[in-house]
Amino acid sequence: MDGLMMDQPLLLNTLLWRTERLFHDKKIVTRTGPGEYHSYTYADYAKRVRRLASALLDFGVKPGDRVGTIAWNHYRHFETYFGVPGIGAVLHTINMRLFPEQQQYLINHAQDSVLIIDEDQIPVVEQLVALGIPSVRAFIVMGDGPIPETTLSPVHRYDDLVAAGREDYEFPVFDENTAAAMCYTSATTGDPKGVVYSHRAMVLQAMCLAMHDKLNMSESQVWLEVAPMFHCNGWNIPHTALLQGATLVLPGIHPLDADYVRTIEDLRVTGMNGAVTIGTMMRDFVRASDRDWDLSSLRTMWLGGQAPSLAIMQWWEQTYGTYVVQGYGMTECTPQICFNSIKSTLAERGEDEVYALRQKGGQPIPLMKIKVVGEDGGELPWDGTSVGDFWVQSPFTAREYFEDERTKESMVDGWFRTGDVGAIDPDGYVIIKDRSKDLIKSGGEWISSIDLENALMAHPKVREATVVSVPHEKWLERPLACVVPADESLTEEELREYLTQGFAKWWIPDSFLFVTEVPKTSVGKYNKKEIRGIYAQGGNAEILRRIGAGSAKPVA
Amino acid sequence: MDGLMMDQPLLLNTLLWRTERLFHDKKIVTRTGPGEYHSYTYADYAKRVRRLASALLDFGVKPGDRVGTIAWNHYRHFETYFGVPGIGAVLHTINMRLFPEQQQYLINHAQDSVLIIDEDQIPVVEQLVALGIPSVRAFIVMGDGPIPETTLSPVHRYDDLVAAGREDYEFPVFDENTAAAMCYTSATTGDPKGVVYSHRAMVLQAMCLAMHDKLNMSESQVWLEVAPMFHCNGWNIPHTALLQGATLVLPGIHPLDADYVRTIEDLRVTGMNGAVTIGTMMRDFVRASDRDWDLSSLRTMWLGGQAPSLAIMQWWEQTYGTYVVQGYGMTECTPQICFNSIKSTLAERGEDEVYALRQKGGQPIPLMKIKVVGEDGGELPWDGTSVGDFWVQSPFTAREYFEDERTKESMVDGWFRTGDVGAIDPDGYVIIKDRSKDLIKSGGEWISSIDLENALMAHPKVREATVVSVPHEKWLERPLACVVPADESLTEEELREYLTQGFAKWWIPDSFLFVTEVPKTSVGKYNKKEIRGIYAQGGNAEILRRIGAGSAKPVA
Repeated sequence: MDGLMMDQPLLLNTLLWRTERLFHDKKIVTRTGPGEYHSYTYADYAKRVRRLASALLDFGVKPGDRVGTIAWNHYRHFETYFGVPGIGAVLHTINMRLFPEQQQYLINHAQDSVLIIDEDQIPVVEQLVALGIPSVRAFIVMGDGPIPETTLSPVHRYDDLVAAGREDYEFPVFDENTAAAMCYTSATTGDPKGVVYSHRAMVLQAMCLAMHDKLNMSESQVWLEVAPMFHCNGWNIPHTALLQGATLVLPGIHPLDADYVRTIEDLRVTGMNGAVTIGTMMRDFVRASDRDWDLSSLRTMWLGGQAPSLAIMQWWEQTYGTYVVQGYGMTECTPQICFNSIKSTLAERGEDEVYALRQKGGQPIPLMKIKVVGEDGGELPWDGTSVGDFWVQSPFTAREYFEDERTKESMVDGWFRTGDVGAIDPDGYVIIKDRSKDLIKSGGEWISSIDLENALMAHPKVREATVVSVPHEKWLERPLACVVPADESLTEEELREYLTQGFAKWWIPDSFLFVTEVPKTSVGKYNKKEIRGIYAQGGNAEILRRIGAGSAKPVA
Repeated sequence: MDGLMMDQPLLLNTLLWRTERLFHDKKIVTRTGPGEYHSYTYADYAKRVRRLASALLDFGVKPGDRVGTIAWNHYRHFETYFGVPGIGAVLHTINMRLFPEQQQYLINHAQDSVLIIDEDQIPVVEQLVALGIPSVRAFIVMGDGPIPETTLSPVHRYDDLVAAGREDYEFPVFDENTAAAMCYTSATTGDPKGVVYSHRAMVLQAMCLAMHDKLNMSESQVWLEVAPMFHCNGWNIPHTALLQGATLVLPGIHPLDADYVRTIEDLRVTGMNGAVTIGTMMRDFVRASDRDWDLSSLRTMWLGGQAPSLAIMQWWEQTYGTYVVQGYGMTECTPQICFNSIKSTLAERGEDEVYALRQKGGQPIPLMKIKVVGEDGGELPWDGTSVGDFWVQSPFTAREYFEDERTKESMVDGWFRTGDVGAIDPDGYVIIKDRSKDLIKSGGEWISSIDLENALMAHPKVREATVVSVPHEKWLERPLACVVPADESLTEEELREYLTQGFAKWWIPDSFLFVTEVPKTSVGKYNKKEIRGIYAQGGNAEILRRIGAGSAKPVA
C-alpha cells in the first residue's frame, strides 16, 4: 500500500527557499584582509545565487554539465554551491593544492565544460590549458577588480555574469537523485577517483549534521568554515549552516593561523571546523603570540581528517572552554560516517575515561549503517576488540566511482568497503586502528600506526608524530616514526622507553627520525604515502635530507 | 546526470537499527500507577518489536494490511509503532475518544484486518462488533494479566503473541513511499477523512523535529509524551525520541493532571508535549495542590492544537523556568507545518514583543513550503497583514485522502489547502487568524474568533474562553463568547469594556455566556462545532442548560 504523501523531492533549492525567507537578515561574512570583512545577508546571497543560475543557463550551461571551481573559501565560491546545482548542473570542486598534472586529470576525467576560478589561480589555469583541458569552453574569474592580464580565452568576469542574471529566476524541480556535486579522492594507487553527490544525499547529510547536538549547528551559531570548500563540499558544513540560518564565516583568500584567530575574536565566532593540524597551529600561534586573544566565544571546534590528540583537546578546553569534537568521514560518504557525542549514560564516568571515548571516531550518524568485517567476510561483534574492515551503507554513500573500473574493488553486496580498519565498541563508538593503506603488517601480525602516533603525540616533548610502514627483509614491514620535537632535549631513547610502557616490544618503531615538519596532504592529513615514497628513494637519510632534520638529537 | 549514491530507502526500521545499538541502555518508562513505573531499555524494546513483527507475519498479517490500535500511551502501544510498519503493514491508530459509530466508520473505511486494543477497551470493541466491523478477523488484547471475560473472538493475548515471535527477526527492505501508518481527521462536514503516512514522510518529519533547537530532542532529554499516541502518531514525538535516543516517558492508562505532575517530579522529566488544555490543567492542579511540586527539571513544554495564552506561557516560565513553545500542524502534515523559535536577530527586542512573536504559529520547518493565497487565487505578500488561506507543500504533506472524494476540494496544483486562514510576517512567522470553519463573517466583514479568544484569555478573571459564530438575521453571522470565569466577580460589562479597548465595536460578541467548562474535542481543542450545534438546538438557553451555567453573574 502506498503512503499517500506528496512527491516533493529533496533538492538543495528547497533549503534555499526557506533560508532566504526566514533568515533573510542573517549574514555570510568573508574575511578580505587583516580585520577586514565582506558581509551580506542570506537575502542578498539568494538573489545572487538566482542571478548566477540564470546567467549560467544563458551562458549555455546545461543540466548535467560539470562546472569546475578552483577557489578559496569565500562568498562567491559559496554562491556556486547552490547556483550550479540549482539548474541541474554539477559543481566539481577541484583541490587547489594538487599538482597541475593531477588537476588536469580531474578536469579531463570529469569533462568540465566551464571553470570558475579565483584570480590568483590564473597562472595555474594557464598551465592547465598548456597541458590540455579540451572540454573547458570558458573561464570565469572571481575577484573584486577587473580581470588581470591573461592568455585564458574566452574569459569572463564572475561579477559581470551575476549582474547580467535575473534575481527572480525560479529553480526548476527535478529528481532528487540528480547529481549536484562531485569531488575526487586520492587513491592508494593510480589516479584519484571521482565521487558524485546527489541532491538527496546532500540534503539528508545536512539534516543529520544539523540534528547532532554536539555540533549544534543552530540558528544562533556564528560558524567559521576553515575546512577547504574544495574538499568534499567543505564537509557539508556550508549547507548545514544555510539550512539552519546560522551566520557563516568564510576565511577568504590565503588565510593563515593568525587570520583564523583574529577572525574568531573579531566576529565572536562560536564554532569552527577544520583539519586537526589547524587546531594545533592555532594553539601554537596563540601560545607564541605576544598578546592575549579573547577566543572565549568559541564553544565548538570540530577537528577532522584524523583523531585530534588528547593534548589538543585538553588545551582548548582548559584555555578557552572550547569543546573539541571529532568524527569519522570520507569523501565517499558526503562525508560524515560517525560523529562523536558522549551519551548521557557514559558521561558520568571519570574524566580520563570520557576523554578516551572522545578520542574514538564516534557513533554512526542517523541513516548510516556500519559493520566490521573479518577476513572470512563475516560480520564481527561490536565488542571494542574485534578488528576488521569497516563497511558502510547509507543514502549518502557512493554506490560507484565516476566512470572508474575500481568501483568493483570497493562496492560489495550493496556495501562500501571503506578501506579502513578498526573495531566498534558495545555502544557503537568506532575505534579506527588504521587506514588500510597505512597498516603495518610485521611478521604476519598487524601493528596500528595510529595507536603508536597517538601515544607519541601525547608525549609532552613531541609536537607532531607520524608512523609509517617501511619494507623490511625479514619481517616484510616495520614501523618508522617521524617526530617533530617540541623540546630540544628529546631523545630517541626517551621515546623508546616511553613506548615500551604501553606496547609490545615488536611494535616499537625501528627508527625515530627527528624532522622539522611532517609532510601533509592537500587536505591537511599526514602524508604517509609521500614519506614512504621518499624512503623508497634513499631510506632514512633521504627522509632527513628532504624533510629536514629536526633539532632534537638522536642517540648515538 | 545521476548522483552515484546508494539507493537506501528512508524506512522506520533504519532508525530502529541505530537506536537499538547505540542507545541500547537508554530507557522507555511507562507510568503504571501512582509513583509506579514500568521501565525497560531500547535494547529490550527492539527485541520485542522484532518479536511482534515476526509474530504478526506468522499470524497472517501481510504487507499493506491495516492493523488498528485502540490504546493509551504505553510501551506496548509504542512497540506497534515500529513492529507493524516494519513488515510493511499499516498502523491505524484509532481515536479512543470517538463515539462507537465513528470508530466503526473508521475501522470499516480503513478495512482493518486486526485490532490491537487495551483491555479496558474490550467493552467498547464488543459494541463495535455488534455494530458491524466485518473486516476484522482477530483481536489482540494488551494488558499485564490474563484476558478478561469477553465475547470477542478470536481473541489473543498481546504478550503471548510477542513471546512466540523471534527476536532475531530481520526487517525487510522496501520502497520508502510504502504506507507506514494512517490516521483519520475530523471534517467540517461529513465523516472523518483518512491520511496515510509513508515511511519517508515519518522519517523526514522526525529528522526535522530533531534538528529544531527549541524542541531540542537530544539524547539527554527525558521526554514525556502526553499527546495521545492515537493522534497523528503522537505528533511524531515518539519517533523523534527514538531517533535521538532520548528517554521516552509514557503516561500509561487513564492519566490525570496529577499523574503528569507527579511523573515529571519522579523521573526528572525535561520536556513534554500535549494540548494547550493540559498545560492549563497542570497549572491549576499545582496551584490548588497543598504541597510544593519540584518541576524544575522541566525545561520545555510544547503545547499544541491551538496557541497557548500569554498567561500560560508566563506562568510556567516564571514558576519553573519552563519554556513554553508552540507550533502549527495538522493531521495531513505528519503533523508539523511550523514550529516557533525566536531568531537571534529578533530575540534582542523587548520582552513584550518577543512574547507576541512566541504566540505566533512559528516558522515553516525545513522541507515545508507555505503560502498565503488571496480570494483571487494569487499568492499574498509576507507582510504580516495580508490575510488569506494557508496552502502548504512538503514531502510529509498528504497528496490525497484515503479513498475519499473530498480529496479534490483540498488538493490544488500540488498544494494542500489547509482550510486555515491567516497571514505570514516578513520573517516567516505564521499568524493564524482562524481555522476556516471557525471564521465569523459579519455583514460581509471577517471577524477573527482567535483574536477575540486570545484577548479574553489574557483577562485575569478568565480561565477559558472560546468565541464561535452564530447565525444572525441581519449580519448573517455574529460572534458569541463562552467564558469560564476564574473569579466570581467577573461581569459581562467588564469584558465588554475590556474588549472595546482593543477591537472595533462591531467585533464585540453580542452575548457572553458564563459556563462551567468549554467543550473540547477528542484531541483537546475547543469544540466549536459542538457549541454551534447546541446553539442551533435552542440558542443561548440551550448552551447554558447543556454546558452548565458558570458561577459569574451576567449583568442584568
